[in-house]
Amino acid sequence: MEKFFQAESVAVIGVSNSPGNLGRVMVYNLLEFRYTGCVYLVGPKGGSFLGHKIYPSVMDLPEPVDLAAVLIPAAAVPSVLQQCGERGIKRVVVESAGFRELGEERMTLEHEITECLDRYQMRMIGPNCIGIINRHNGLAVPFMPFNAEARPGSVSIVSQSGGVGAVMINGLASEHMGFSKFSSIGNKLNVNEVDLLEYLVRDEDTSSIFCYLEGIAEGRRLMEVASSSSKVIVAHKSNNGESGSIIARSHSASLSSDDGVVDAAFSQCGILRVREQGQALQMLKAFMLPPMKGNRLAVISRSGGHAVMAADAAEEFGFSLPPFPDETIRRVEQHSRAKVIQFHNPMDLGDLFDLKLYQSLAENTLAREDIDGVLFIHNYQGIFDGDESRRLIGGLGEIIHRSLKPLAVCVFTTSSELEYNRKSSKFPIFTDPREALRALAWNRARRDRIPLPFSTVKPTGVDKSRVRSELGAEASGPLAAEKVAAILTAYGIPLIDWRHACSEEEAANAANDLGFPLAVKTAQPEVIHKSDAGAIHLNLADEKALRSAYRALSAFGPSALLQKMADPGLEWFIGGRQDQQFGPVVIVGLGGIYVEVFKESAMRIAPIVDEEANRLLDEITGSKLLQGVRGEPPLDREALVDTIVRVSWLLKDFPQIEQLDLNPVRIYQQGCLAVDWRIIAGTK
Amino acid sequence: MEKFFQAESVAVIGVSNSPGNLGRVMVYNLLEFRYTGCVYLVGPKGGSFLGHKIYPSVMDLPEPVDLAAVLIPAAAVPSVLQQCGERGIKRVVVESAGFRELGEERMTLEHEITECLDRYQMRMIGPNCIGIINRHNGLAVPFMPFNAEARPGSVSIVSQSGGVGAVMINGLASEHMGFSKFSSIGNKLNVNEVDLLEYLVRDEDTSSIFCYLEGIAEGRRLMEVASSSSKVIVAHKSNNGESGSIIARSHSASLSSDDGVVDAAFSQCGILRVREQGQALQMLKAFMLPPMKGNRLAVISRSGGHAVMAADAAEEFGFSLPPFPDETIRRVEQHSRAKVIQFHNPMDLGDLFDLKLYQSLAENTLAREDIDGVLFIHNYQGIFDGDESRRLIGGLGEIIHRSLKPLAVCVFTTSSELEYNRKSSKFPIFTDPREALRALAWNRARRDRIPLPFSTVKPTGVDKSRVRSELGAEASGPLAAEKVAAILTAYGIPLIDWRHACSEEEAANAANDLGFPLAVKTAQPEVIHKSDAGAIHLNLADEKALRSAYRALSAFGPSALLQKMADPGLEWFIGGRQDQQFGPVVIVGLGGIYVEVFKESAMRIAPIVDEEANRLLDEITGSKLLQGVRGEPPLDREALVDTIVRVSWLLKDFPQIEQLDLNPVRIYQQGCLAVDWRIIAGTK
Repeated sequence: MEKFFQAESVAVIGVSNSPGNLGRVMVYNLLEFRYTGCVYLVGPKGGSFLGHKIYPSVMDLPEPVDLAAVLIPAAAVPSVLQQCGERGIKRVVVESAGFRELGEERMTLEHEITECLDRYQMRMIGPNCIGIINRHNGLAVPFMPFNAEARPGSVSIVSQSGGVGAVMINGLASEHMGFSKFSSIGNKLNVNEVDLLEYLVRDEDTSSIFCYLEGIAEGRRLMEVASSSSKVIVAHKSNNGESGSIIARSHSASLSSDDGVVDAAFSQCGILRVREQGQALQMLKAFMLPPMKGNRLAVISRSGGHAVMAADAAEEFGFSLPPFPDETIRRVEQHSRAKVIQFHNPMDLGDLFDLKLYQSLAENTLAREDIDGVLFIHNYQGIFDGDESRRLIGGLGEIIHRSLKPLAVCVFTTSSELEYNRKSSKFPIFTDPREALRALAWNRARRDRIPLPFSTVKPTGVDKSRVRSELGAEASGPLAAEKVAAILTAYGIPLIDWRHACSEEEAANAANDLGFPLAVKTAQPEVIHKSDAGAIHLNLADEKALRSAYRALSAFGPSALLQKMADPGLEWFIGGRQDQQFGPVVIVGLGGIYVEVFKESAMRIAPIVDEEANRLLDEITGSKLLQGVRGEPPLDREALVDTIVRVSWLLKDFPQIEQLDLNPVRIYQQGCLAVDWRIIAGTK
Repeated sequence: MEKFFQAESVAVIGVSNSPGNLGRVMVYNLLEFRYTGCVYLVGPKGGSFLGHKIYPSVMDLPEPVDLAAVLIPAAAVPSVLQQCGERGIKRVVVESAGFRELGEERMTLEHEITECLDRYQMRMIGPNCIGIINRHNGLAVPFMPFNAEARPGSVSIVSQSGGVGAVMINGLASEHMGFSKFSSIGNKLNVNEVDLLEYLVRDEDTSSIFCYLEGIAEGRRLMEVASSSSKVIVAHKSNNGESGSIIARSHSASLSSDDGVVDAAFSQCGILRVREQGQALQMLKAFMLPPMKGNRLAVISRSGGHAVMAADAAEEFGFSLPPFPDETIRRVEQHSRAKVIQFHNPMDLGDLFDLKLYQSLAENTLAREDIDGVLFIHNYQGIFDGDESRRLIGGLGEIIHRSLKPLAVCVFTTSSELEYNRKSSKFPIFTDPREALRALAWNRARRDRIPLPFSTVKPTGVDKSRVRSELGAEASGPLAAEKVAAILTAYGIPLIDWRHACSEEEAANAANDLGFPLAVKTAQPEVIHKSDAGAIHLNLADEKALRSAYRALSAFGPSALLQKMADPGLEWFIGGRQDQQFGPVVIVGLGGIYVEVFKESAMRIAPIVDEEANRLLDEITGSKLLQGVRGEPPLDREALVDTIVRVSWLLKDFPQIEQLDLNPVRIYQQGCLAVDWRIIAGTK
């Protein structure tokens, strides 16, 4: 990817002298950003623009270039790419629209492009995108006019929408945070977001990444790149619902995916998901500060009201507020003007007018061993103490620059003063104590919760070949209950004792084998809603009852499953399915009334390790019930965790298992048992 | 209150010629805001400042003034107020600090002030505040320097912290929204926030109100003023926890109140609660638009990516997106440049460059009968189409001005262009589709949910004198169970059948009267945790079992309560207590495991009407269980509602009931029954 962003020469293809020509904007952008390389223009009508000759064809270029940026009618793209290939141009950005986003009939064009890229071993960004920018060398080829308001910085941007990416650049500019690389990705026919992310997590000029996506190309690879990255990735994934999906398809050829799966996948691999640009900016700001390694916070504030808010927010986000040492308090008291303020943590400096004291107070407090981070709140109107305040804020910047702990600075002033301070600072300036403490909380949380990679060690006692043979001959659709049971057992998933029977006599023998009381249900795979169909008989006390139940069931067909009546227990469900973007997904929740009323469940992309299953359970409020509430003994959480992990492996090993349901799984003081099970198979 | 803000002459008391004198800042502010009235200065050292003579004393003023603004040492305040009284000055703003916020020993000063105010029938804002501003007549007496960056507008501000109030003014300035009145309230010794709110909801120059509070003076009056106001009140109530409380007390002498009660009270009376200034600004913006009267939304966007986000947000906030009429689509298609965009709702105009079309599209769409509101998203960089874009945004302003439906405008551009547009517009400009749609959702919700005033009609069958006599002789503390039962019954609250007994024989007779099976528990009021103490015996099947249970219980004392065993049923709890700020509060939730694990409950300030009790139940997810899940029949929600209302009246009528618990209350298909009850009485 670096060859895109570090290109030392670029050809802009599709430039003409007509005033409405958008290729000209690309040339303007290269000029606006002071591109440090050579620029060549190509356009069939020839002529010249901004002092550059317009060559009629790629074939006429005086030398091969590192990068071609293409904006010509869609139909002409394949032949121009071929010319690029011939001339040895290995990197192209195709900004033209008019491909699959307009419907299936345009797919042929995309096939031709892919073929050409393969033939010449070229890489392409686009089509249907607005191009790329490298703020550090001035390479800027979007066909939308940009200005260089945003300074060079360390945030990089990957955006499936050019407009949204541009807005993020403006947002970074308004906070004076700057950016490093920008890439829109459009239809991602060749290069996709994961290719770019993989490059950016290695890129030295990038310290954090913002990503806007409407669809996800390679979910699992995305997760692998993210979970191994030490850089923060903030992602805005839109296109969650029905209406968004329609517009996104026409806009950039994306398929909507189950939003809950995206949430789960991102959280699992440490991608921070946002739903608004403002949130994204706040997160990016949060990670400009060094990590908060503990909970101990000191708040120093010139405004009493904001100190109160800070105390509220500290409580909300779980920070503790250790007292200031006596000698600090004495020192501050000596400088207090009217002695009408008291000093706690938060410390309210409202009565102090010596701004130099503020700075040394911030520095000394940050250096304290019993403090993990400081929030400093300054308040001024810019009329009387504007100069001192500007100096103070500059001084705080120096402290931040030197420190390994976070000093969050919150400034309340007029918009013009705020603008001045942002422009002259290289650290984040917050404008609300709660915003600042939320930032420190994110910062701390990321340190506390390192993403776990996919499991690589299969659980013990897993018999893959048995499952293969059970699945092998089966057509797609719901599997017979006894087959499902065999599959689950082969993966060590605990089931209630069961027997299969195909005649009344078999049923009677099986029943005596299992012992009473027991349940019998149809094992005909085509009966889906067994309860509703009356295809389950519970609590059969003796052989007579069993025989009568079996005879009733035989209306559905001869195949029946007998089960011991399971002891009562807390009911959970464990399910799974194959997601188009992320592959196997395991879904867990409390069963019965809880799932119906409280809709509590959590998901993970499989296969997962025990610790991940534990994190999953922690997300479910009702998992407190496992601890044993109201004096009841605790239940076997480990057994539940083990079963979840085994299910996650089963789904991973056999993608032809399209859907799996264990519902309910009863959890006991020792062990757990699935009481009902279902698998729907697909063609692999 | 208008006499404060409409004062035609003002005396600034505490001005000297020393450069650090803060009284001088007050004079600067009057100049900065171009005060239209007459200004007099008072200070013991005399002299002159900014062309005004400094009179040595209030007694020397050439004429009485409408308002005195006072900033002198605390100890001198009572005598200066007395002079004001003598000179017939009826309104004073005391900005001096050093009163109760420094401890109880300063209370004497406050008492002297109150006495003086009463004697001369004066009203006072403060002490310990930063004063007031009326942006429309330039009356501005804060001792902190302000500048007149924020234009005259229609948002008024009441703030317990001067700093926070000033920051809100800056925030309004940065959005170019402007403000009308500003008042800090400090220790609110005489005038409090409710006095000011009462004035502002009537004030013609005020259309919405922002309120920052660290404590609440008169909770019930606040609710009454708010629930009868057609203006939006956005309140930031801080000081929620322990640490905030300590600093707030020293900062402005506030008592922390139970934050959940504040949430409940505000939501009940229609006050919109925020926890950050940014949220407050977004809400104030939301209500600058006319009300959204339904769910039908049209989105028109120049940016495809933002259209996708808008679709997501529309789904999130429950808006529907009806299709555009064919003729609109045809018209837009005619203007489409490269025909590479498809047209749905959201409509993505990315391919259209005729900005005049945008404006007429917005206007026609807003006029459609099947549309309740429009979100218009514009995206420009200001280099090429800056002039047309500015014209377009101005044109949208005219549409907004004429329309009775909301047109939310979201603009993505550089910060300088955004600044220009905000400055030249009189309508809210949003910077994120989700922010804009959240604003429309708030706007719609406020229309959908009119606050209900306190109940004024007592439920039927309430016997107040019976309760009075039961409570009358009782000392404070837990009441005897049979007394509690009598009190509850007098208010029509349904209880399981019960009998009281003080000897084994009485118990046996009562049991035969009630019928078996039954439960017996101690009725000795001093036994609080009956289950833990072993003071309850359940499921007694016959007299023998009862007698043996009674004998065991008599270890606690002779008094016992017998109850029929209640049929099983869904368990709720209904509780109540007296809040310091808001008075009687009723608390309702699902009982048993639900309250322990899911912590679901909701509160209301009593007394409430049936509809309010229904709203309360709707806030509790678990109330879905009342509808009958999993094929069970629905339960008697009306009976639960009636019981809640009766409890709310009982708490209102008898403030000496400090705490009340009905737990559990079992809900049946017909009716409900409290199975255990407790009241703790206090001295009234």
